[in-house]
Amino acid sequence: MEQQAIGVFDSGLGGLTALRELTGLLPNERFIYFGDTARVPYGTRSRETIINYARQDVNFLRSFDLKAILIACGTVSTTAMETLKGEFSTPLFGVVDPAVAAAVAASKSGRIGLIGTPATVGSGAFERAILAKKSTAQVTSQACPLFVPLVENGRFEPEDNVVELVVAEYLAPLKAAQVDALVLGCTHYPLLAEAIAAYMGEGVTLIDTGAAAAQALATFLRESDMLSDESHKGGQKFYVSDSPDGFERLASVFLRTNVCGEVTQVTVG
Amino acid sequence: MEQQAIGVFDSGLGGLTALRELTGLLPNERFIYFGDTARVPYGTRSRETIINYARQDVNFLRSFDLKAILIACGTVSTTAMETLKGEFSTPLFGVVDPAVAAAVAASKSGRIGLIGTPATVGSGAFERAILAKKSTAQVTSQACPLFVPLVENGRFEPEDNVVELVVAEYLAPLKAAQVDALVLGCTHYPLLAEAIAAYMGEGVTLIDTGAAAAQALATFLRESDMLSDESHKGGQKFYVSDSPDGFERLASVFLRTNVCGEVTQVTVG
Repeated sequence: MEQQAIGVFDSGLGGLTALRELTGLLPNERFIYFGDTARVPYGTRSRETIINYARQDVNFLRSFDLKAILIACGTVSTTAMETLKGEFSTPLFGVVDPAVAAAVAASKSGRIGLIGTPATVGSGAFERAILAKKSTAQVTSQACPLFVPLVENGRFEPEDNVVELVVAEYLAPLKAAQVDALVLGCTHYPLLAEAIAAYMGEGVTLIDTGAAAAQALATFLRESDMLSDESHKGGQKFYVSDSPDGFERLASVFLRTNVCGEVTQVTVG
Repeated sequence: MEQQAIGVFDSGLGGLTALRELTGLLPNERFIYFGDTARVPYGTRSRETIINYARQDVNFLRSFDLKAILIACGTVSTTAMETLKGEFSTPLFGVVDPAVAAAVAASKSGRIGLIGTPATVGSGAFERAILAKKSTAQVTSQACPLFVPLVENGRFEPEDNVVELVVAEYLAPLKAAQVDALVLGCTHYPLLAEAIAAYMGEGVTLIDTGAAAAQALATFLRESDMLSDESHKGGQKFYVSDSPDGFERLASVFLRTNVCGEVTQVTVG
């Protein structure tokens, strides 16, 4: 039987943080990454448009022979997941449940913070999942609409004055609420982790949703006996909807290593 | 003969600043505004994708009976205009030439500044047009990739700390170059005019590209005897590609009055 690949999808390049985790956990797997760079960002758009775009994106990924798709995008995971699961037979994994499990496990006080795009926070999906798992939890949520443009423009270093100011503005209510676990509900945000940690101070666990989702997917595949064995050679292919020109530079930031794999531009929608 | 309308296009809602100018100048005209809110921003995307999107947008506008189309978008005007003019017979007007004429007229020193999206600045279109008009001009250009996300998120007040910091960062080279005219090469930027003026100080004329283009189009229509006469009642219709839900709130900011006209969502591309 031909080796099936694993699809990884994000609106932009943030999902590469999940891919990095996956390639470390599953070295014999082939990965197909798709980033909808011609239409990023999703998180400030309407629910209807996000669902429409996500449907087109998953349809594109299904043109490959895939064993599973990781929706490494907080906005799509919280806004379009139920719709997508009803429409596609390929197993789809989102970022909500794994991140919530990690946050509930990490929080001693039960005061849990969530940051995400306006669409993610507006959906209430993370809050519902946290309360379903721990009914006494106190959840404080904050939309951070400028984080994705900052990161997509390469602005995430903690010593960047603009980053420092925007982080302090958005996170002030979470600090005031004394959360001890903070869900980074967007795959772009791990790049801001150092700046976020510096502001929040010690004793606050940051939950990387992409990494948590990657671990959950790896566990599922292992328990379902769906992993490729050592006779297979792992690999990565990258697809983007805008020009690949800027991809390698920005991708190397997310992957923390040079991009190793073919990059192809495709049209979706 | 049926009254023809005037099309006004922008990637998002920034072009409404040009529409405001046009409705003031031409009260008997009907206007069709299209904002591609499902795919904004354009200015950080590749040239190829910008041309592709702009072609689809103009095609949509051409489904109406139009006497002219104002491309009230600095990115499309500088990146896709030549391509579009070769493909469509409807008269197309961009923002470059009117803004350049205004800047050259306003500058006493010949030191002219340009700010715009990365695509606009990268195209070199404004610099070429300035030097063609005044060969001794010294042009200083600066891409401001965070300005559009800031404005689209309602962040443009001069007392906003983030706005103040980002404005100071981007405009420092223009202040150092002692420009006395500054082209706001993106229709989003007039909303930041107060913050920009506060930083640049007195003696610097800010050129609003949307307003300059609106005036040039009005002059063209008058001189070509293409204006509707007083028997016609002016009006506006708005089309957007994302949900109209947030449109009215943000549109009223750009128009500085409540939106008066039907808002319809359409699919392009």
